[in-house]
Amino acid sequence: MLPEWVHHDCPAISLSHRDAALVRQSELTKPPGALGRLEALAVELAALQHTDRPSAARAPIIIFAGDHGIAAQGVSAFPQEVTIAMLANFAGGGAAISVLARELGSSLEVVDAGTLADTPLPGVVTDKPRRGSRDFSQEAALEASEVAFALDCGQRAVARASLQSPDILIFGEMGIGNTTTSATMAAALLATGPDLMAGRGTGLDSAGRARKGQIIAAALSRHGLRAGATPEQVLCAVGGLEIAAISGAIIAAAQRRIPVLVDGFIVSVAALMAVRINPSCRPYLLFSHRSAEQGHRLVLEALEPRPLLDLDLRLGEGSGAALALPILRLACALHNQMATFAEAAVPERA
Amino acid sequence: MLPEWVHHDCPAISLSHRDAALVRQSELTKPPGALGRLEALAVELAALQHTDRPSAARAPIIIFAGDHGIAAQGVSAFPQEVTIAMLANFAGGGAAISVLARELGSSLEVVDAGTLADTPLPGVVTDKPRRGSRDFSQEAALEASEVAFALDCGQRAVARASLQSPDILIFGEMGIGNTTTSATMAAALLATGPDLMAGRGTGLDSAGRARKGQIIAAALSRHGLRAGATPEQVLCAVGGLEIAAISGAIIAAAQRRIPVLVDGFIVSVAALMAVRINPSCRPYLLFSHRSAEQGHRLVLEALEPRPLLDLDLRLGEGSGAALALPILRLACALHNQMATFAEAAVPERA
Repeated sequence: MLPEWVHHDCPAISLSHRDAALVRQSELTKPPGALGRLEALAVELAALQHTDRPSAARAPIIIFAGDHGIAAQGVSAFPQEVTIAMLANFAGGGAAISVLARELGSSLEVVDAGTLADTPLPGVVTDKPRRGSRDFSQEAALEASEVAFALDCGQRAVARASLQSPDILIFGEMGIGNTTTSATMAAALLATGPDLMAGRGTGLDSAGRARKGQIIAAALSRHGLRAGATPEQVLCAVGGLEIAAISGAIIAAAQRRIPVLVDGFIVSVAALMAVRINPSCRPYLLFSHRSAEQGHRLVLEALEPRPLLDLDLRLGEGSGAALALPILRLACALHNQMATFAEAAVPERA
Repeated sequence: MLPEWVHHDCPAISLSHRDAALVRQSELTKPPGALGRLEALAVELAALQHTDRPSAARAPIIIFAGDHGIAAQGVSAFPQEVTIAMLANFAGGGAAISVLARELGSSLEVVDAGTLADTPLPGVVTDKPRRGSRDFSQEAALEASEVAFALDCGQRAVARASLQSPDILIFGEMGIGNTTTSATMAAALLATGPDLMAGRGTGLDSAGRARKGQIIAAALSRHGLRAGATPEQVLCAVGGLEIAAISGAIIAAAQRRIPVLVDGFIVSVAALMAVRINPSCRPYLLFSHRSAEQGHRLVLEALEPRPLLDLDLRLGEGSGAALALPILRLACALHNQMATFAEAAVPERA
């Protein structure tokens, strides 16, 4: 059983603030629609935040890390100890997301949601039910209680971040093997061919990708995952702890009326899972970018086919979402600060 | 005759800095290539700026404004007096580009390169050979001396901006009627069908677009502009003062080894003209976005088919380039600040 709270409805968006934002956009000194998708973004944030002045100023970043038993099957170009080494790099300020968080003025919290680390790592919040998931080519990845713990872990992280009164939240992930876990989860949820979902990850060659596709196919078959499998079945059979934690964090953020700027493939799979568990969280998801990872396009088609950026990123860590944050901030600044035709005494169209 | 200086070679990029930047990218704590186009951006800036530490921190914005005799043919959804009214709005801080410049910490200079204004406008640099271009459906838009003046105007603006030691420059434009001027220039330079180049501008309906296409076709025919027309012939017959000024500014920036972040349709046409006048400026052009304006895709195909952003923008003013600036800044921050595998003691790929 998933925890009861994940099924609670997320608040409705404010139609009155949406309508007011649409009117304001039509009054600003520009041809109607000339700011393209930035206009829609500002309107969407106004509706989600129930405000006339949407904002993406306070944007905490939370990274969830986990290890994956499936890594034993040689599905990654990098050795498994990189997961823990990268946690130290996040905390030490040298990873991509560390640099981005600093530049953007965002706080960065790193949560060990299920790595193999034996002892708590410095600068990292440890909140895990076990060390790594099991190898789902051999057995179920997680027990139901472990899935529940991971969802709660996400909720707890959002509760901590809420103390900052965030305008929006960014979630990232780290975990050697987690593109294989994500691809398997997505193939199960979308009933898509494993070969289409199996991407290069951190750098597989085509033989590696073919093998990854076979491992995914075998896992779907072994665990009897076909169209109609429930979210809980998928999470238990082939899930990952950091991915489940992000699904929980997304639902918890939406329940608190905090929009989420969704990162790349793995976070998008967590978002797909969150929407399957609780469809009322969907309006709170803004999609930052289309990654170069093979399966991302398929997952986005089920959620939002046109994210903001398309820059061939495939790093994870929340880095794509962080890169899109300035677009949101500037969309808000334009909405809030531009003069109207009346204020600037500019003639309107004939 | 175009001014002699426009033909002077722009400096070569630094191959040694490019190679060093490529090596550094391969050493940073991420899978090779995982930062996608951001890696290429950082490498490109390092090569252009002859540095190990590329930067887009200092990014002055210069708007060139002009009026267009062709506006008399009813090619715009907005009345012609909007050009001058918007100059006041730029200077007053209420326009989109004013908001963006403020948020990005960029200076904003507004140059009247050829509006109908009789007297200098407050907060605006007046540097024009005449008030507006002539109606090119009736006669040549500009005399050769006026084109030369406009190119020099762009050079003077870059000289002023150079006092700030800019890392990169952004040029924008304002001018009711200037999508028609740009589309005609591009149709002449690329020998493309006028109906393909004629877009909605600030908001034409399809009848308006069809009429715009006819006006462009008639102008190409009247002035004998076909494949092989020289840049000077095109500028004199159907050019615009602010567009010629931007072409001059682009060449002048590249000659000073300053990269230019190119905005949307109109600035891209000015860039195409600049490259036709002086091909050695091409490496200095970074393309910010693909606009919703019909002809932009065709112009980009001749220059750089894949700009950074694709957000349905069609405002001009340099706004699309300003919106892409944070991507450049973050690409530089990642390049300069991320830890290497050795520094962070992260294991490299197996």
